[in-house]
Amino acid sequence: MRFDHRHLLGIEPLRPDEITTLLDLADRYVTLSRQREKHANVLAGLTQINMFFENSTRTQASFELAGKRLGADVMNMAMQASSIKKGETLIDTAMTLNAMHPDLLVVRHPHSGAVDLLAQKVNCAVLNAGDGRHEHPTQALLDALTIRRSKGRLHRLNIAICGDIAHSRVARSNILLLHKMENRIRLIAPPTLMPSGIEHFGVEVFHDMREGLKDVDVVMMLRLQKERMDGGFIPSEREYYHRYGLDQDKLDCAKPDAIVMHPGPMNRGVEIDGTLADDINRSVIQEQVEMGVAVRMAAMDLLARNLRARPKEVIA
Amino acid sequence: MRFDHRHLLGIEPLRPDEITTLLDLADRYVTLSRQREKHANVLAGLTQINMFFENSTRTQASFELAGKRLGADVMNMAMQASSIKKGETLIDTAMTLNAMHPDLLVVRHPHSGAVDLLAQKVNCAVLNAGDGRHEHPTQALLDALTIRRSKGRLHRLNIAICGDIAHSRVARSNILLLHKMENRIRLIAPPTLMPSGIEHFGVEVFHDMREGLKDVDVVMMLRLQKERMDGGFIPSEREYYHRYGLDQDKLDCAKPDAIVMHPGPMNRGVEIDGTLADDINRSVIQEQVEMGVAVRMAAMDLLARNLRARPKEVIA
Amino acid sequence: MRFDHRHLLGIEPLRPDEITTLLDLADRYVTLSRQREKHANVLAGLTQINMFFENSTRTQASFELAGKRLGADVMNMAMQASSIKKGETLIDTAMTLNAMHPDLLVVRHPHSGAVDLLAQKVNCAVLNAGDGRHEHPTQALLDALTIRRSKGRLHRLNIAICGDIAHSRVARSNILLLHKMENRIRLIAPPTLMPSGIEHFGVEVFHDMREGLKDVDVVMMLRLQKERMDGGFIPSEREYYHRYGLDQDKLDCAKPDAIVMHPGPMNRGVEIDGTLADDINRSVIQEQVEMGVAVRMAAMDLLARNLRARPKEVIA
Repeated sequence: MRFDHRHLLGIEPLRPDEITTLLDLADRYVTLSRQREKHANVLAGLTQINMFFENSTRTQASFELAGKRLGADVMNMAMQASSIKKGETLIDTAMTLNAMHPDLLVVRHPHSGAVDLLAQKVNCAVLNAGDGRHEHPTQALLDALTIRRSKGRLHRLNIAICGDIAHSRVARSNILLLHKMENRIRLIAPPTLMPSGIEHFGVEVFHDMREGLKDVDVVMMLRLQKERMDGGFIPSEREYYHRYGLDQDKLDCAKPDAIVMHPGPMNRGVEIDGTLADDINRSVIQEQVEMGVAVRMAAMDLLARNLRARPKEVIA
Repeated sequence: MRFDHRHLLGIEPLRPDEITTLLDLADRYVTLSRQREKHANVLAGLTQINMFFENSTRTQASFELAGKRLGADVMNMAMQASSIKKGETLIDTAMTLNAMHPDLLVVRHPHSGAVDLLAQKVNCAVLNAGDGRHEHPTQALLDALTIRRSKGRLHRLNIAICGDIAHSRVARSNILLLHKMENRIRLIAPPTLMPSGIEHFGVEVFHDMREGLKDVDVVMMLRLQKERMDGGFIPSEREYYHRYGLDQDKLDCAKPDAIVMHPGPMNRGVEIDGTLADDINRSVIQEQVEMGVAVRMAAMDLLARNLRARPKEVIA
Repeated sequence: MRFDHRHLLGIEPLRPDEITTLLDLADRYVTLSRQREKHANVLAGLTQINMFFENSTRTQASFELAGKRLGADVMNMAMQASSIKKGETLIDTAMTLNAMHPDLLVVRHPHSGAVDLLAQKVNCAVLNAGDGRHEHPTQALLDALTIRRSKGRLHRLNIAICGDIAHSRVARSNILLLHKMENRIRLIAPPTLMPSGIEHFGVEVFHDMREGLKDVDVVMMLRLQKERMDGGFIPSEREYYHRYGLDQDKLDCAKPDAIVMHPGPMNRGVEIDGTLADDINRSVIQEQVEMGVAVRMAAMDLLARNLRARPKEVIA
């Protein structure tokens, strides 16, 4: 079992066999979490700090539960209220935390690249929980695990990613991962929400949703930031739903056994029809949440093994 | 020891013998909590999530300590700031949490019935920590334990509940519990704060406090929501205190050994005289807080036993 | 090993040998925290409550990690939002928490003396995490440990404390501690930020920074509350930095091996030059943070030993 990384900053540096290693371990943590006695001790004695510079109840909760279930001492830092206000820089904050000897630092930050920068300054393992429009690797990994468990494989699948691709770190990490695993990726979005030049990354670009969904195995919807809408360059919610919202009618273009995914939280009636989101024959949205905890347990377990394998003098 | 429930949603579904079972177990947790080594492991391996859609420092703290003392992995979710803002529905939030495989979900919500609705959607045990004007079962149970320990019994007592009965889930749960246990209940409130038709529930209604307190064993004061006062239909604070605030003079109408209760936080000089609240010969207000932790430990312990007794396949 | 206190309310009541006892134990916790397996169980079974009436991410995090690493059940109470708003008094809040049987209560409060008052009302150990302009004992202890480890001793050193001395509980606790340990203390501040009559406390007063820093072993900078500046009686940030900000040029007045300290969070370019703050040959600012966790572990360990040595009947 090889996973040759000190940090989990993005999907980009991961090899396909490392992704497989992580997902295999995550599968075992799914089984553990379904039991009543779901507490293990592989992180016992280690300190995990969650440092969220952007609010995210569900991602933070997922990392917190993952750490607690593995026996880590877990601490949440609410970063907005406090030291940032007092004018402390990101690096000062990181150095301060680093001096408290955490082992695992989970960071979400509104600026792309902020988590990479921070990782260079600390001597613990850093997990990127989303940085600007850059990467959100655990989201892509949990999506991959969900697909693999549902489809029985994670390669040679036709996968459509639909919605606000231009602003989405979720889309970016998913494209990287699914491409590494040799799937065929289709991007569906209005021209204003499609990054220019993206077709050079080995993806197919569609502006018509029915055309894009034709014969796909997986339909991956993205969250639309409502606050960005009605601003002239993007259509109203009603118009958006009409053209790019997933409903049964559009889904009928996909394969009959195509699964429906969404990273949550959903805007029902904007990105996706509410009934479809709840249809347990097609929607795997709840499974995604479940896989999220398992994937984060696996990621922290692997990084902790690497930490422990490093010579001790590095720590001081 | 029988407690035949999957959830603790209210006092209404509980049988008298189940209430006694829970209070007996809580008595043992009072003893444990008074020791220096107050950590047990009956919830070890289980995940408890506290989901408070309304702020309540003391109730949330009480549940958090109860869970931690019993060895659960406890997580608090601050619900207002995050997903609710993003337009997620209560049910989506519940389903998301459910997918993370909690065992115990403690929920406070401003809408009556919201916790019952949520309980139908999840496959863990749900504890109602207060929903709108409906129920607040652990408050009634801690009040019952306080009374039983102070009076030596929990039946055939004369108990007065005084104050804003109309808006109070605390009053409602207490009336249900004390009635089941065969006590004589008197309600004392100005007409505007007394629910109409309440006299059909086997209680006596009083608008004069001295008359209502005559020969009672227990005086249970309610918290007055200050923000509802001075609004025309209810009197000023000063006028309210004069007529319905508990002072030594009014208390002299009760039995000489009557105890004084308040669910907290108190408005001293509005609902109750500050000196009386601190009088350890009459006031059991601090005991109520202590019993709160013990009752919540007992409730979670009983629900966890029932969870563990259920076949495993229900979980997945 | 003697430490004859029920609480840690300030440096004032501590004897020099007690300070040495605490620092010796903290040294051992530095070693523990530098290991990967940094979890001990000396506080297992005990309940620690952090009650911060003022925000302080780093101090609260330091106490939280200290408690978790020693196996306590740790709970944070966010005090501003909740019960205080509801009009509850400090004493009611303290009595409520006390009824939940904490063993260690860590309190920060904006009013001088509030923590002492609270300690009189509870039967657990109280640790002052900063009260108004009064004391911040764990900060002085962590500074002492940092000095002792860097200089090899904690006596007969020349130590300069520079900046907003008038408003600083950090300065006050440090002066008390360093004076008890027989060091020579110099205070450097503009007249408006220097408490009047302070020279009677066995310290030397300077208004010129270069003069004050001459031949000192330790330069301890204080945080400047920016919000107090530009108010007429104190100079602008630029003017302040010119006269009292620590830069290489002013530091050259001190001994060649003088260390630079700051309690954080720093205002770079106001109190201290950013490059100097990061110079690992002179600055021990990160060590201070590291020592903070260790000192708090030691303080809680010692207080817990005293708690356990007390007869049990005191608790109920």
